[in-house]
Amino acid sequence: MTGSTDMRRVFVADLGGTHLRTAVVDESGRIQFRAKQQTPPAESAQDIVTVLVAAARECDRQSAAAGFSISAISVVAPGTVNVPAGSIIKVPNLPFLSGFNLAGAVSHELKRPALLENDANAAAVGEMWRGAARSRRSLVCLTLGTGVGGGIILDGKLWHGAHHAAAEVGHMCVEPFGGVTCTCGSRGCLEVYASATAIVRMTSEARSRYPHSRLQTDSELTSENIFRAGVAGDELALEVFRQMGVYLGIGLANLINILNPEMIVIGGGVMNAWQLFEKDMNREVNERAFPLLADLVKIVPAECGDDAGLLGAAKVAFDRDEETQ
Amino acid sequence: MTGSTDMRRVFVADLGGTHLRTAVVDESGRIQFRAKQQTPPAESAQDIVTVLVAAARECDRQSAAAGFSISAISVVAPGTVNVPAGSIIKVPNLPFLSGFNLAGAVSHELKRPALLENDANAAAVGEMWRGAARSRRSLVCLTLGTGVGGGIILDGKLWHGAHHAAAEVGHMCVEPFGGVTCTCGSRGCLEVYASATAIVRMTSEARSRYPHSRLQTDSELTSENIFRAGVAGDELALEVFRQMGVYLGIGLANLINILNPEMIVIGGGVMNAWQLFEKDMNREVNERAFPLLADLVKIVPAECGDDAGLLGAAKVAFDRDEETQ
Repeated sequence: MTGSTDMRRVFVADLGGTHLRTAVVDESGRIQFRAKQQTPPAESAQDIVTVLVAAARECDRQSAAAGFSISAISVVAPGTVNVPAGSIIKVPNLPFLSGFNLAGAVSHELKRPALLENDANAAAVGEMWRGAARSRRSLVCLTLGTGVGGGIILDGKLWHGAHHAAAEVGHMCVEPFGGVTCTCGSRGCLEVYASATAIVRMTSEARSRYPHSRLQTDSELTSENIFRAGVAGDELALEVFRQMGVYLGIGLANLINILNPEMIVIGGGVMNAWQLFEKDMNREVNERAFPLLADLVKIVPAECGDDAGLLGAAKVAFDRDEETQ
Repeated sequence: MTGSTDMRRVFVADLGGTHLRTAVVDESGRIQFRAKQQTPPAESAQDIVTVLVAAARECDRQSAAAGFSISAISVVAPGTVNVPAGSIIKVPNLPFLSGFNLAGAVSHELKRPALLENDANAAAVGEMWRGAARSRRSLVCLTLGTGVGGGIILDGKLWHGAHHAAAEVGHMCVEPFGGVTCTCGSRGCLEVYASATAIVRMTSEARSRYPHSRLQTDSELTSENIFRAGVAGDELALEVFRQMGVYLGIGLANLINILNPEMIVIGGGVMNAWQLFEKDMNREVNERAFPLLADLVKIVPAECGDDAGLLGAAKVAFDRDEETQ
């Protein structure tokens, strides 16, 4: 079964720093024709457009063979984007895209509406549509990956900010004095204590205090390896995830006190270590957030995994389509 | 001139911990018949209702003499309120009000629609309507008084939170480890470094290091006196306001990175010391907020003074009236 032919379908692309993931998503949230490739070594905006258009045309062919068509295009990117304009403001990994109207260029080539959204915002929408936040209306979604991304949904709608750059929750300060320097230029940001990069750095820094840890060689230091060591009882790994849980809890308590969301959803690769940081995270939230709010908020792991961005990209495109009809 | 008789007017009351301020406000934002009394030593919710109703009836008499009438009632209170229900969730200074439908009781007695709002939320609306944030759509308003209150307006609307308790920006953590204990149960909250209470405490704590300071006797330690000493060059006072500026800047940078507002408005009594904390506040914001956002956000002193809550109370009542028509 390939699904109903009268259902709308969109081509979605998640333009990550490492991988470009593409798929077709229908109105029920079903993902078809998924593909994953290394993000091409592009040198110009046109290179990116060419790759996206080729992937969309391949999905067009597969869709036509299955008896249906793709009505719109939705792309998500890891950086600051101007959603109404469809243009990139800043994507650190792809600096040549700054100021480029990516949605416009893709729409022009493919002769269909195209939309551009931030990847962490899309992940929040994906989790609300088909993941951990189904039936919720107000949530913050944190993506703990190479960095820490965020998406804020209030009363069912993404809050984009006055200048298209809200929800930079990874750059909330959780260690104001003497904190580690962050790529954003600040120091003590949540990102330098709760990302995969941070897990590796903190392990490396604390290693000399744990001579019996198995994590003594640099080649072993990946966040996945540190997680596995923690599960196996390695004290160094356990201490690092405890620390990470404390900082994450401080950040979540701030978000709770500022936004009073119904739910906080935590995704990204580091989320897999939930069992290792949950206790410290929850203790900090309970000690620091307003008691009323700490009792009511649900803090849960994401459910859509790597598909959150693709699903959210599709949902914002379906919603836009309905708004413009 | 007493104003046009065909203009709508509302009775507003700001039920503070120390003072009860009342007035009539018309659609143009003009305040009439203002009165201020000590918050009565009430022992029951009915005592509060009686005082509010008496004040409203006095305004009714004055209004009738001037040839117009009052169409609605709007009360603001320093605590957590359920705006749609019109009921108090928790007002720390008036614990017997918990769970009481104050808007309902006042409406019943005065036979007119009545509305209840949080005081810091109302101040934000007041500043957007007639103060520093005129023509702005997205702002955070901080009220630096005995405590630190907050109001968040996004795309022109107050964000109340999923459980009526958003914008507790005074309880954002700005000193996670070793921070001063806060009345909320947490520690290191912005409120313990940027309120009038905090200014007094920090001065007292640092006094022994500044033997030449004029602020050596406890009786002199009020935030107003410390401000005046700072203006006169007292090094202890200057150091306290510098510290306060640093913590405030950390908090503002967080709000900017999370919400990306157009503007941050700072009101409350401590705002009067703006010249003493501005430099340190701005430096921290510039060092810690996303560069794009730090450049674009306007951080400004409030303009409505003690009237912000009254004006905001009126505005939310006029807006409610329009919604229900």
